[in-house]
Amino acid sequence: MTDLPLFPEAQLRAFTHQVFLKIGCSEEHAAQATDVLIAADLRGIDSHGVARLSGYVRLWEANRIKTKPEMRVVHETPSTATLDADEALGLVSGPEAMRLAIEKARVYGSGWVAVENSNHFGIAAYHAMMALEEDMIGIAMTNASPLVAPTHSIERMLGTNPMCFAWPAKNHPPFIADMATAAAANGKLEIAQRSGKAIPPTWVQGKNGEWSTNADELKNGGSLLTLGSTPENGSHKGYALSAVVDLFSGVLSGANFGPWVPPFVSFLPVQPDLPGKGIGHFFGVLRVDAFRPKDAYFQAMDQWISRFKAAKRKDEEIPVIIPGEPEFEFTARRKTEGIPLVAPVIKDLEELAHKLDLRL
Amino acid sequence: MTDLPLFPEAQLRAFTHQVFLKIGCSEEHAAQATDVLIAADLRGIDSHGVARLSGYVRLWEANRIKTKPEMRVVHETPSTATLDADEALGLVSGPEAMRLAIEKARVYGSGWVAVENSNHFGIAAYHAMMALEEDMIGIAMTNASPLVAPTHSIERMLGTNPMCFAWPAKNHPPFIADMATAAAANGKLEIAQRSGKAIPPTWVQGKNGEWSTNADELKNGGSLLTLGSTPENGSHKGYALSAVVDLFSGVLSGANFGPWVPPFVSFLPVQPDLPGKGIGHFFGVLRVDAFRPKDAYFQAMDQWISRFKAAKRKDEEIPVIIPGEPEFEFTARRKTEGIPLVAPVIKDLEELAHKLDLRL
Repeated sequence: MTDLPLFPEAQLRAFTHQVFLKIGCSEEHAAQATDVLIAADLRGIDSHGVARLSGYVRLWEANRIKTKPEMRVVHETPSTATLDADEALGLVSGPEAMRLAIEKARVYGSGWVAVENSNHFGIAAYHAMMALEEDMIGIAMTNASPLVAPTHSIERMLGTNPMCFAWPAKNHPPFIADMATAAAANGKLEIAQRSGKAIPPTWVQGKNGEWSTNADELKNGGSLLTLGSTPENGSHKGYALSAVVDLFSGVLSGANFGPWVPPFVSFLPVQPDLPGKGIGHFFGVLRVDAFRPKDAYFQAMDQWISRFKAAKRKDEEIPVIIPGEPEFEFTARRKTEGIPLVAPVIKDLEELAHKLDLRL
Repeated sequence: MTDLPLFPEAQLRAFTHQVFLKIGCSEEHAAQATDVLIAADLRGIDSHGVARLSGYVRLWEANRIKTKPEMRVVHETPSTATLDADEALGLVSGPEAMRLAIEKARVYGSGWVAVENSNHFGIAAYHAMMALEEDMIGIAMTNASPLVAPTHSIERMLGTNPMCFAWPAKNHPPFIADMATAAAANGKLEIAQRSGKAIPPTWVQGKNGEWSTNADELKNGGSLLTLGSTPENGSHKGYALSAVVDLFSGVLSGANFGPWVPPFVSFLPVQPDLPGKGIGHFFGVLRVDAFRPKDAYFQAMDQWISRFKAAKRKDEEIPVIIPGEPEFEFTARRKTEGIPLVAPVIKDLEELAHKLDLRL
């Protein structure tokens, strides 16, 4: 499948864990943050795994991440809460918020936790999937550095603002829809950038709104397009979805929102006069047996999956996919074969090892 | 703006109310169902207003709608419930479910109600917006007759499955994102059908998956494409969203799902061996002050709206729109000028009046 060097999961896990310990995380937080990052690499979301590790370290160096945060609930009702993450790694505050949501769902049927004052939380799927082993539906979303322009705009106002919905199943792997609300996520652009290939004209626009097939257009002042890409094809829907993620994550939580969301990269300045604290996330958990008996739910869910897998194909060779299937296949393969890393990421990890006096 | 004949809101409201009474609705249910339909016409969602009235009557004639339903909660936790709508008009069961969700949110911070055994509920926005006057966020979604093919499939497996998110604001009109999860909603196709114009090749596919610009392609065995339209542009995201709406509305509630969702049109048969009851909806309500003080929420929400309205425009003449703005403009105009109806709808209403011995 790949000519890239393969790294055993255990090796990357041990190294990542050491890095988080080195920058001051507790044993528990280091293990948690590591688990989120390695999950991304296992699931094939290479842009969100160890490729980002040095980025988190740089944010810590820039005093934008606290590795000994004092997270606390600042507002609460029986089924809801707002967590002030105290500038924690989102890799740590996300799971903390999900545990709280799960506890609430256990007692009240559902639990909803908004998080303010946080940082990048890795892949949304990790958090949403925490609900699955409890026979609960998990929802996770976050706002992010502004790169995406609303329909009819050429200004970067929204992040790629992902949302994930994780639904437990019994005889099939669970249904996991984890998606950026932009037409194409950053990871796809990065792949095109590395290969020097043109991108479809429906992913980014130039700084004046012109069509572009240049994967580097963002560096020239361009912006990402929302899901739907053009007004004719429903870009206003992608804009609305991305906006909804921003409202849940930022406006409802007390975090920043829209163009004020602090950038992930440490070399870009945080804007002055921020309307909120840090970046924001939003999590939801619903017990399936808060709506119907578990058996009835699982029977229907399995039937849904079986039926959609059997949907009539356009091309006999190309299966109809249940959201999440490719990531489970990636995980199975990478757990045995190892995780492939591109040269720039290996170099980045080696430099990080050198800087922190560790061994990759 | 239009050369079409204009009908005063009061006239259409009175007529619609009489129709619902005539088919056996209680005074209360007739008023409720009328309010949902007229709201669609006021908001400019012409495909979901009185244009559908005769369709509901035909479903009643086909014994697929009960006008004296005994709706009951069949499963419940503090923050959740499942409502068996007993084959009610969705125009009636939707508001009933929202009232229940609002009551739960009042006490527990949030409320979530799944509905099974229901029928078409009109526009999602009506239901979601019921939360607004309570200073709550409203969410509404429904599954619908299968017309949409998943990515890589040519089979109609999903409805246009809309989702609506309504967010209250203070100094601005509320934010209302009400969207079908298909690339283009049925209403847009109907407009193209009436005018005989070609549609973009990204809305429907032919029965073998071929590109088509024919607005009548659905009649030839074609299917609607999901938001994103092509795999390259993220059609798998539109598929995932539509699937999530189907899971919430059908799998979680006990209603039918996927290709088994009963058709709205009475001349198409309901399939045998249904996995659930009727069509399904899902509603959610979150108190804004379940997450932060109301003042802080409204300040942030108003700032969000102001900032997005001021986003740099691609074309100075074309404003950046806050989701819901066009519908508020429609409502203001139609409340004073009247509601324009196309000739086939007027004819349909006149025939209905004749059949039921009423006057339009």
